[in-house]
Amino acid sequence: MESESGVPQPAGFKTLVGNIGIKDATNDFACVFSSAPCTVSGMFSQNLFAGPSVKLSRRYLAEGRPRAVVVVSKNANVATGEQGMANAVELTERVAARLELGAHDVLVASTGIIGRAYPMEKVRGFVEALEPAAAGCDFAGIAGAMMTTDTVSKYVHARIGEATLVGVAKGVGMIEPNMATMLTFFFTDAAVPQATLDRIFRKVVNATFNCLSIDTDTSTSDTAVIFANGLAGAVDEAEFEARLHELALGLVKKIARDGEGATKLLEVDVAGGLDDAQAKRVAKAIVNSPLVKTAIHGADPNWGRVAMAIGKCEQDTSIVPERVRIAFGDIEVYPRRLGAADLDRLSAVMRAEQVRVAVELGCGAGRATVWGCDLSAEYVSINADYST
Amino acid sequence: MESESGVPQPAGFKTLVGNIGIKDATNDFACVFSSAPCTVSGMFSQNLFAGPSVKLSRRYLAEGRPRAVVVVSKNANVATGEQGMANAVELTERVAARLELGAHDVLVASTGIIGRAYPMEKVRGFVEALEPAAAGCDFAGIAGAMMTTDTVSKYVHARIGEATLVGVAKGVGMIEPNMATMLTFFFTDAAVPQATLDRIFRKVVNATFNCLSIDTDTSTSDTAVIFANGLAGAVDEAEFEARLHELALGLVKKIARDGEGATKLLEVDVAGGLDDAQAKRVAKAIVNSPLVKTAIHGADPNWGRVAMAIGKCEQDTSIVPERVRIAFGDIEVYPRRLGAADLDRLSAVMRAEQVRVAVELGCGAGRATVWGCDLSAEYVSINADYST
Repeated sequence: MESESGVPQPAGFKTLVGNIGIKDATNDFACVFSSAPCTVSGMFSQNLFAGPSVKLSRRYLAEGRPRAVVVVSKNANVATGEQGMANAVELTERVAARLELGAHDVLVASTGIIGRAYPMEKVRGFVEALEPAAAGCDFAGIAGAMMTTDTVSKYVHARIGEATLVGVAKGVGMIEPNMATMLTFFFTDAAVPQATLDRIFRKVVNATFNCLSIDTDTSTSDTAVIFANGLAGAVDEAEFEARLHELALGLVKKIARDGEGATKLLEVDVAGGLDDAQAKRVAKAIVNSPLVKTAIHGADPNWGRVAMAIGKCEQDTSIVPERVRIAFGDIEVYPRRLGAADLDRLSAVMRAEQVRVAVELGCGAGRATVWGCDLSAEYVSINADYST
Repeated sequence: MESESGVPQPAGFKTLVGNIGIKDATNDFACVFSSAPCTVSGMFSQNLFAGPSVKLSRRYLAEGRPRAVVVVSKNANVATGEQGMANAVELTERVAARLELGAHDVLVASTGIIGRAYPMEKVRGFVEALEPAAAGCDFAGIAGAMMTTDTVSKYVHARIGEATLVGVAKGVGMIEPNMATMLTFFFTDAAVPQATLDRIFRKVVNATFNCLSIDTDTSTSDTAVIFANGLAGAVDEAEFEARLHELALGLVKKIARDGEGATKLLEVDVAGGLDDAQAKRVAKAIVNSPLVKTAIHGADPNWGRVAMAIGKCEQDTSIVPERVRIAFGDIEVYPRRLGAADLDRLSAVMRAEQVRVAVELGCGAGRATVWGCDLSAEYVSINADYST
């Protein structure tokens, strides 16, 4: 199925966006709902302060047959006590009633400042005025309405045989997902059995969103959900997984590039780990090191900081400096000493808009790739004065 | 014993400082030596890429009877291969010969850029020209010669009965010590038996330097050593420990305040942990969160980020948000809601040059206090262009 603009759309999904008026006049409400029942798979923040939205969605996923999701941006509804939970329940019930769905069939996600209650008078009035019958199919609008300090909206799509898969995400800061990242949703009209969807979604999220870190800070609101309503029939499972992985990775790179204050995408490839877990620990230590991130920002080929970050993994005593190799792009910088001829090439690699750090640990066959961004003065100014 | 300026000096220790010419014309060589044998205790970086200085000092401490230490700044001599180790050995041997000490009696520490060899021609000429007979007793000069991007030198002193204890430190970035921080040295003329010195020094370092984090990056060069030459005789053990703790804490606060780009000292007190280890994990998560650090920088009472950072300790499932309390200074901000009357006081607390975040976890009797600093745009500009 295609929209008027030629962008592919999954059949049976409709979208509603609008402005509740939480912070300013930009859209802060997004809702996607399916006309047909869905198989749904979700992963959520492991943060101990996970908010009512995460708790409710987790419960609804276990108890209900969700086929809709509502997202409120500019307010995370986290650490808001019993009132915060009551507000989240009321929001989903009111939206469900308007959509003529069961109360447990609407998932909810929220993002924005922590510690403030929803303005419920405004929420009630807004939901009352929703017109589901006039809903469109505007996933770019959904991605836009989810934004907080995002500077670009994150929306991707792909075809899988006769089916369509779209994905939206938001996220710029407080991002080191453990189970999912900030908010990301996928919608497809492919028919995918529940067990298959769960298996594929977990695998893809672990290899994409869970390999992303902007600032080491795990959000309280992380939510990743996929809805499959089956209207386009069955698809090739391997192709579905490949396309889902591709789209998830696309969103991850969009998030990393749009990391708060970021000017560069940082990709860290670690090979030669004892196992994949060790490779991921080392890759995360590198991508999260503020000294590596500032060096990348300054296009400074200061590989000593990469060595330092590897060495921070102190429990990984199988790593021996003498067997480690470090490269920027495809230029090895350690232990090999650079010649004058390499310096121009290295300078170009460091100045690029995407910088790859490649490390060989020399321990085994474990591998991991993680994504992040540079650390800029802009990150500080965005975050030094957020709530006031 | 007092110097001409009235500052107390431990008897029997002499100092040499000077410029090898590693980077610029500022002092980059510091040496302290004792006329009498010492008991010595040391703790070193656990980073897997620990450099030749750390490795040699660890070995000399085990094998020799060190009574001197030499510090080279502006060059860490890390990840410099076999030549780097050979250079460190040559440096200590040449200095030992000039001081008429055994080759294993001179500890060595280095700090500065990683991955560059010492300029050995300059080092040889410099050491040859040293005049130990004309050495002074200038510990402020020692602290000054150890500086890299430090903006102030870090030197403290105290009296313990008839004895004197002085301490020097350097460190502004790449600081999340595991066993010690960057470089810190203490010298005393108190007589302290080896076992007592080891026990007290480990206890004090763990409660001070190991509770400090500037940027989560554990240096390859961390070294903390105390020399006691006994010339002032025995002292009260409890008083010695109390003064050492006080001085170490003083240096920690000086380092935190002088953290790269720092404008504020951040103290995080966590009480009510299941045990001290849990309290320290939570305190470190808070003091290291870039979102907490930027909020402190902006004097923004955004306590939701403190809640997020507590919640990042996902394995600590004994922590229940409903039992947690968060305060800035002595003003509780969660779960209590602030009244208008509190806001002025809160604003003053956030704008102070030292900000204390206090958390009660409600799990048990575990406690920890850690120190750090805010994150500023200046941190980025200092580190974006360090090696080039």
